[in-house]
Amino acid sequence: MDSIFSFEDIMELPSRYRANLINMVSGIKPANLIGTTSKNGQTNLAVFNSVVHIGANPPYLGFILRPTTVERHTYENLKETGVYTINQITTAIHKKAHQTSAKYDREVSEFDAVGLTEHYQQGFHAPFVAESPIKIGLSFQEEQLIKCNDTRLIIGKMEHLILPEAAILEDGDIALDQLDIAAVAGLYNYYKLEHLGNYGYSKP
Amino acid sequence: MDSIFSFEDIMELPSRYRANLINMVSGIKPANLIGTTSKNGQTNLAVFNSVVHIGANPPYLGFILRPTTVERHTYENLKETGVYTINQITTAIHKKAHQTSAKYDREVSEFDAVGLTEHYQQGFHAPFVAESPIKIGLSFQEEQLIKCNDTRLIIGKMEHLILPEAAILEDGDIALDQLDIAAVAGLYNYYKLEHLGNYGYSKP
Repeated sequence: MDSIFSFEDIMELPSRYRANLINMVSGIKPANLIGTTSKNGQTNLAVFNSVVHIGANPPYLGFILRPTTVERHTYENLKETGVYTINQITTAIHKKAHQTSAKYDREVSEFDAVGLTEHYQQGFHAPFVAESPIKIGLSFQEEQLIKCNDTRLIIGKMEHLILPEAAILEDGDIALDQLDIAAVAGLYNYYKLEHLGNYGYSKP
Repeated sequence: MDSIFSFEDIMELPSRYRANLINMVSGIKPANLIGTTSKNGQTNLAVFNSVVHIGANPPYLGFILRPTTVERHTYENLKETGVYTINQITTAIHKKAHQTSAKYDREVSEFDAVGLTEHYQQGFHAPFVAESPIKIGLSFQEEQLIKCNDTRLIIGKMEHLILPEAAILEDGDIALDQLDIAAVAGLYNYYKLEHLGNYGYSKP
């Protein structure tokens, strides 16, 4: 038995229920931590589930920034310093990673608050997460203000990519399940991954 | 032992290897099929791994459209008709879904070519995928041309949302693993999901 919601039905749902439902229907999402430093040297770490591939040549990643309090620290810092990091969340650190979504004051570093470790790559100003097996350092490239709801698409260029040599397969693929990479669904639910198969390039 | 790539190292990688690697490092991605109809009534179905949540109130979803041949049918159709569908891929149909990425001619419907079934919701012009448990009908809302590489962020407003009543949990969450929802990594790898936990709204 299917439930069928029209646009009007969705708009009449209770606010929290609607947020959960609508955040779920797009499917599973990547689980990432974005690390930044303010111009005063205060580090910040925030969980994001909206990182999206923009291009490989040159290498660009995007993420959606909502107009909210927690994420504004990330935005202010990356605009001020021009750099940020995207770090993959594993099953081992997913609870600590989720805890970074709490509304800490700006003078609190979420690294300290949740118990994760800053890692620095020579000459790069933003903090990586030492416990994350896939660490990406980016420079701010472009932003698009989305008119319909004032969210922003933030795009960065990969300046550094750090990952275990043993996890890179012959063709450039990465064994995400062997790295225990986690995934998010909706706002609060985390998943682990089991590989189904690699089907290669499709032909008619 | 970590491999460390600078921007320059990434740019010097062989093209296919770089595409695989860079498509992997953002983590797991949602696996969706986008259904459209041309103004002449020809249906089209294409796999996308870039669907991203834009907002819940009102309900908006986005996806990234690359400037490639296969995806241009989707873009042309949704601009011509103003509507499209986003359908979750399950483990049961993930091989058929992946096969839609082959470069079929425009006069071929991928529904027929891969063996999936068109489903219509009264009064809505774009085809849903009958085999998909979560079906979303959208109207085109906004597009942003991304300057750095000429990709586009396409945003749609949810007009219809169809999913099994039994899969909706009390608070509006959806049990994605019980629906056997699949995920993608990189360009060719598919994963299944195992629930780790629901951690709720975080407080400091």
